[in-house]
Amino acid sequence: MSTSNTTELRVGVVGAGIMGADHVARLTGTTTGAHVSAIVEPDAARAAAAARLAPGAKLFSRVEDALAADAADAVVIATPGRFHEPVLLPVLEAGLPILCEKPLTQDPESSWRIVEAEQKAGRKLIQVGFMRRFDPQYRQLRDLIASGRAGELLMLHGVHRNPSVPDGYTQPMLINDSVVHEFDVVPWLAGASITSVEVKYAKRNALSPAHLREPILVLMELDNGVLVDVEMNVSVQFGYQVATEAVFQRGVARIGQPEGLQLWQDARFALNEHTSYVTRFKQAYDIEVQDWVDAARRGAIAGPSAWDGFKVAVACAAGVKALDTAGPVPVELPETPEFYAV
Amino acid sequence: MSTSNTTELRVGVVGAGIMGADHVARLTGTTTGAHVSAIVEPDAARAAAAARLAPGAKLFSRVEDALAADAADAVVIATPGRFHEPVLLPVLEAGLPILCEKPLTQDPESSWRIVEAEQKAGRKLIQVGFMRRFDPQYRQLRDLIASGRAGELLMLHGVHRNPSVPDGYTQPMLINDSVVHEFDVVPWLAGASITSVEVKYAKRNALSPAHLREPILVLMELDNGVLVDVEMNVSVQFGYQVATEAVFQRGVARIGQPEGLQLWQDARFALNEHTSYVTRFKQAYDIEVQDWVDAARRGAIAGPSAWDGFKVAVACAAGVKALDTAGPVPVELPETPEFYAV
Amino acid sequence: MSTSNTTELRVGVVGAGIMGADHVARLTGTTTGAHVSAIVEPDAARAAAAARLAPGAKLFSRVEDALAADAADAVVIATPGRFHEPVLLPVLEAGLPILCEKPLTQDPESSWRIVEAEQKAGRKLIQVGFMRRFDPQYRQLRDLIASGRAGELLMLHGVHRNPSVPDGYTQPMLINDSVVHEFDVVPWLAGASITSVEVKYAKRNALSPAHLREPILVLMELDNGVLVDVEMNVSVQFGYQVATEAVFQRGVARIGQPEGLQLWQDARFALNEHTSYVTRFKQAYDIEVQDWVDAARRGAIAGPSAWDGFKVAVACAAGVKALDTAGPVPVELPETPEFYAV
Amino acid sequence: MSTSNTTELRVGVVGAGIMGADHVARLTGTTTGAHVSAIVEPDAARAAAAARLAPGAKLFSRVEDALAADAADAVVIATPGRFHEPVLLPVLEAGLPILCEKPLTQDPESSWRIVEAEQKAGRKLIQVGFMRRFDPQYRQLRDLIASGRAGELLMLHGVHRNPSVPDGYTQPMLINDSVVHEFDVVPWLAGASITSVEVKYAKRNALSPAHLREPILVLMELDNGVLVDVEMNVSVQFGYQVATEAVFQRGVARIGQPEGLQLWQDARFALNEHTSYVTRFKQAYDIEVQDWVDAARRGAIAGPSAWDGFKVAVACAAGVKALDTAGPVPVELPETPEFYAV
Repeated sequence: MSTSNTTELRVGVVGAGIMGADHVARLTGTTTGAHVSAIVEPDAARAAAAARLAPGAKLFSRVEDALAADAADAVVIATPGRFHEPVLLPVLEAGLPILCEKPLTQDPESSWRIVEAEQKAGRKLIQVGFMRRFDPQYRQLRDLIASGRAGELLMLHGVHRNPSVPDGYTQPMLINDSVVHEFDVVPWLAGASITSVEVKYAKRNALSPAHLREPILVLMELDNGVLVDVEMNVSVQFGYQVATEAVFQRGVARIGQPEGLQLWQDARFALNEHTSYVTRFKQAYDIEVQDWVDAARRGAIAGPSAWDGFKVAVACAAGVKALDTAGPVPVELPETPEFYAV
Repeated sequence: MSTSNTTELRVGVVGAGIMGADHVARLTGTTTGAHVSAIVEPDAARAAAAARLAPGAKLFSRVEDALAADAADAVVIATPGRFHEPVLLPVLEAGLPILCEKPLTQDPESSWRIVEAEQKAGRKLIQVGFMRRFDPQYRQLRDLIASGRAGELLMLHGVHRNPSVPDGYTQPMLINDSVVHEFDVVPWLAGASITSVEVKYAKRNALSPAHLREPILVLMELDNGVLVDVEMNVSVQFGYQVATEAVFQRGVARIGQPEGLQLWQDARFALNEHTSYVTRFKQAYDIEVQDWVDAARRGAIAGPSAWDGFKVAVACAAGVKALDTAGPVPVELPETPEFYAV
Repeated sequence: MSTSNTTELRVGVVGAGIMGADHVARLTGTTTGAHVSAIVEPDAARAAAAARLAPGAKLFSRVEDALAADAADAVVIATPGRFHEPVLLPVLEAGLPILCEKPLTQDPESSWRIVEAEQKAGRKLIQVGFMRRFDPQYRQLRDLIASGRAGELLMLHGVHRNPSVPDGYTQPMLINDSVVHEFDVVPWLAGASITSVEVKYAKRNALSPAHLREPILVLMELDNGVLVDVEMNVSVQFGYQVATEAVFQRGVARIGQPEGLQLWQDARFALNEHTSYVTRFKQAYDIEVQDWVDAARRGAIAGPSAWDGFKVAVACAAGVKALDTAGPVPVELPETPEFYAV
Repeated sequence: MSTSNTTELRVGVVGAGIMGADHVARLTGTTTGAHVSAIVEPDAARAAAAARLAPGAKLFSRVEDALAADAADAVVIATPGRFHEPVLLPVLEAGLPILCEKPLTQDPESSWRIVEAEQKAGRKLIQVGFMRRFDPQYRQLRDLIASGRAGELLMLHGVHRNPSVPDGYTQPMLINDSVVHEFDVVPWLAGASITSVEVKYAKRNALSPAHLREPILVLMELDNGVLVDVEMNVSVQFGYQVATEAVFQRGVARIGQPEGLQLWQDARFALNEHTSYVTRFKQAYDIEVQDWVDAARRGAIAGPSAWDGFKVAVACAAGVKALDTAGPVPVELPETPEFYAV
C-alpha cells in the first residue's frame, strides 16, 4: 500500500441510474486519489449493477444510513433533480463535500433553502455539476473573452442540438434540463448576470415527440449589455452539437465544431459529428470530477457553487415562464450573501 | 461585324457613382450581348470618368433626354435610392427593360406607385438588384431547402458583418441598406412571406461611429412558421462576412464561410476572409447582369420583380419602426396583383 | 452597332470536340471583345453542332482554307495534341495570335520546331493553354511564395485526382495529359526549373482501367533545391481534386480544398467536393481566354509562351521515360533563345 | 482502504528526465490502479524532483538495487535510448512487465538480443512506447482502413513537423527519434511490412541548426504494394503537426488537422495549431499508460511488443543508411519467432 492510497477520498454515490453509474465507473476507472466506497440506491437491481463497477463499495438504500455508517468522506449526487433537496440536506448537516449533478434543485425556493443550509454548515461544501466550465474549448473561449484580444464581447450565438430525447422529456425540460447549461456557462463566459429571458418559437419539428413544441430560440439580456441567443433543438436527428459563436468588437470566435478524422468520398469532404454528450464532453466530465476530488481532499470546492446553482434555478424559473409569455421575463436575484462573495 | 453583334442590347446607365461606374465596367468588360450606349449623370466629372470605361457611349444629364434620343434599348438605374422613382417612371412609360439597384424605392408608398405604373405599362419591365439570388452558394442553399433532403426548414440564422461603414451611414440604413438584402433573400430561400420584424440591441460596439447603435439582432417570423434571426453588424473590423445557417428537421446547413488559400503559420491555421462585398459577391453581380441582359433581349426579366421590390419596401418600413419598438412589428401586405401572380 | 464592336476580335476555333466546343461557347457567351468568326472541323456533325453555338461563324474543314479566306484575326487550337504542329505552322506563317491548348506538341522535337517557327515569325504569337496560372488560388499561392512572408519555399506536395478517365487514356497520358499541368505550374510557382523527374508506383487501384498502372507518385527536383512530389491519381472515384501544399521555412500553405455549402447531417459535417475540372477551373478558363483576347487585341500574349510549352514537352519526355526507369531521369534544356529571354 | 487499492500496481520508473518525470506525474495524477513505488535515477537532483511528484516512492540509483529490494511490480523505462538494453536485461530476468520508451534499443543487433532475452523469460513482458497507436485519430484511421469502407489502401502521405529541435539533435535522429514513429505506426495502420526505405533531400531550411540537412522526404515501400511518403521537418517554426493522408480506391482520409477554438479576426479565419507533442498526444499517452497498467495487472501487454520494437530498429538502420544512399535501401527481417506469432 503506497502513501498515496492512505489519503484516497472515499466517495459515496447517491443514485445509480445512467448518470450515477457513469460517475461510479469514472471514479473507479479514471479518477485518481478517490474510489467509490458507498452506493446509495433503493432499486436493488441498479445498486447491484453499479456495485459490480466498484469492488468493495458498500450498498445502502438511504443516504442517512450511509452517513450513519461513516461510509464516505464525500458524496456525489446523481438522483433525479426532484430528489436532490432531501439528499443534500442531511449530507450538508454531516459536513461532507458534495458534487451535485445539475440542477442544484428544480425551483428557486428549494435552491434558496439549500443555499441557507450550506451557510448554516459554515463552509462551502457544494459543487454543482455544470461540466461545461471544464471543457477545454469553453475555457479557450473564456480566456479569449477575458484577454480582450478581439475587443469587448458584444453578442453570443449558441446552439444546443440533440439528435433526439427520451420519452418523458417535457416542454419545461427544454429549459430545466437543457438551456440550464447556458444559464450557468453564459454568465461564466461573459462575466455578467442574466437580466431577462425570452423564448421565440421556430417552426415545430414534425419529428419531435407529439407533446413538444420545439426548436425554440432563447434570448437573454446580460447586465453588461451583451445579447445572447441560443437555439435549443432536441430533435435534430443528425448528431449532437453544442457550439457557441462569440461576437467581439474586432473579431468573431466559435467553439464546438466537429473534429477528428476527415474523409473525402462520394463527392463530399466530411468530418464525423458527435452523436452524444458522452463523447463531446467526456474530457470535461473527467476533469470536473478529478478537480473536485483534488479540491475535496484539500477541504475546498473547485467549480460552480451552490450560489451558482441558485442563480441558475432563478433563471430557469424565468425561462419556463417565458415559454408562455410574449417578450422578456425579468430575472431577479437577491443580494449575493457575504458567504458566497469570494 | 458578326451576326451576334447586330442584336446586342444598347444599355443606358443612369447614375455614375461607385455602383454605376461598376455596372458600366461590367457591361463593357464582362457582360456579353450588351454594351453601354448611354450614360446619364448630371455631374460632369463623374460622367466623363464613366465614359472613358465605355468607348462610344453618349452622355446625358437627364434620363428624359436619353429616352428622347432613343439612346438605349434598356436601362440600369444606379442613382441613390431617393432618385429611383423619378427615373423609373419615365423609363416605364417608354416601355424599356430596367435593372434597378436595390431598394426599388425608399418607402412602401413610392414603391406602390412604381408597381402601379408598371402594371399600366402592361408588362413586367423592372428587375430589382438583389444580387444574392444569383450567388452560387445561396442557390445551393435554396436548392437544398427545396429538395427536402434534410427535411423541412425550421429556422434560419444569418450574419451580415461589414468591417466598417462610410460616414453618412445612418441608423435606419442598418435596415434600408443592409438588412434589406435579407428581406428579399429570406422569403426567396424559405418560400414564404415575412409576417413580423423585431429588433434587439446587442452591446454597442465602441468602435462604431458615434451616431450608430449596433450590432443589432433582427428577428423575423415567416408565414410558414420559420423563425429567422439576423446579426446585423457594420463595425466588425476583421472582414466582410455574409453567412446563413439553415436548421432543418434532420440537418443543418451553412453558406458564406471563408474559402481559398489555407496557411499554417505562427501556431495558427488560417484562411483569408473577404474584406468587401466586391470579392464576396463578384460572381453574383456578373451572373445577375448577364442573366438580365439575356432576358431583356428576349423581352423578359430574370430576377426579383417590382413586386418583390415593393414587398421589401414594406418589410423595411416595419424594420425601421422596429428599431424603436419593443416586440414584433407586423408586416402587412396587400393582395398580390394578378399582374404579378405568375 | 457600338464602337466597341468595330474592334471585336474575330476568332477562329480549330477543332470542335469537347474542349473546342467549350471554347466556342465561352468566346460567344462569356468572353467580351471577341466572337467566333470561323470554326475549323473536318467532322461535319461536330462542325454543325459547334456552329449552332456561334451564330454567324463560317465553317471550314482545313485551317489553310480559313486563313486563305481571311476568316479570323486570331486562332484557338483545340484539336488532339498530335494535330497541333500541322495547325500551328500555317497560322504562325500567317502571323496570327494563337491560343494553343496544352500540350504545345507531344514531344520535344516537334515543340522545338514550333519554337523555331515562331522566332522566324518575328514576334511571340503563341499562348499555351495552361489555365492553372489563371486560377485565383494558384495566384494566391504564387504571391505568397514571392512575398517571402512564410520564408523560403522548401517543398511542394501536390495531388491531382480524377474520379475516372475515358477509354483511350493511356499510361503515358498520366504524364502528357495530366502531370503536364504540374510541369508548367510548378516552375511558375517556384520560380525555378525542373532538373529531374522520377516516378514511384503506389499499390495499383483495382478500379483503374486494366491497362493502367496507377496511382503514381511523381518526384521532381528543381534547380533551386526545392523537392516536389505529386500524387497522380485518375481513378479516385470520389471526386475531382487538384491541391498543392507548399512547405516554407516558417509555415505551410495549401490550395485546392473544397468550398461552398456546408451540411451537417447523419452524424457528419460535409462539404461538396468538385467532380470535374469544369467547375474547379471554370473561373481560370474564363480569365485565361479573356486575358488572351484582350492581349491579342493589343498584339501581345498574356500567358504561357511557346517556350514554356517547349520546356514542358521536354519534362514530359523525361516523365514518360521515368515511368519505366528506376531513379531520377534528368531534364536537359538548351539555352533560352534571346527571343524568349524577356 | 478500498479493495481496489490492495491490487494497485507498484510501478518503478527508470530515468527521471523530462519524459521520465512526465510518466511519474501521469502515473500519480492520471493513471488509476497504479502508483509510483520506485524511481531509479543516478542524478540526485533529478531523482529528488521526481520524488516530489510521487509521495512515498523510494529512490534508487541502479535498477538492480530496486529489483533486489522488490520495490516494484512493473517497470517504466524512460532513460536515453542507449541505456535501454542494460536496464531491460535485468528487468526481463526478474520477470516484470515493462513499458519501454521508444526506441526499444538503438540498433537491430541490440534489439535482437532483447528479443532473445524476452523469449528466454518465457512470456511477453515488454511493451514499447509507440503512443500513436493509442491516439484516437490514428485508431479512427486504422478502423477506416480495416473496414474497407473507402476501398483498398493505396498510398499514405505523412507529415511530421516540429517547430524546432534541441541542440544535440543529430542527422541520424531524423530517423531514429522522429521517423521511428512512422516505422511503427505505418505497418500498424496498413497491416503490412516495410520492404524498403529511401530518403530524398528537400531544399535545406536555412533556419535549421547548422549541422542538420532537412527537411527530408522519406519514401517507404510496403509488402502489400502500398507506397508511403513522409515529410520529416524539424524546423517548421509555426507549430507542431503530425498528420497522415490515406489514399484509398474510392476516397481519401486525413487525420491530425487542427481543432478547437476558431477565430475570425484581421481578415483571417484561424484555428490554433499545436505547438508540441505534449498537447497533440496527451490523450494518447494517458490511454497508453492506463492500458498498459490494466494489462500488467492481468499479466499481459496491451500494445507494441518487443518484436515490434525490433522491426522498427531494423527499419531505422535502413533509414539511416538511406540518408547517404541514392535509391531505396532494403529492409530485411528474419522469420517472426513463434513466440511472437500471435
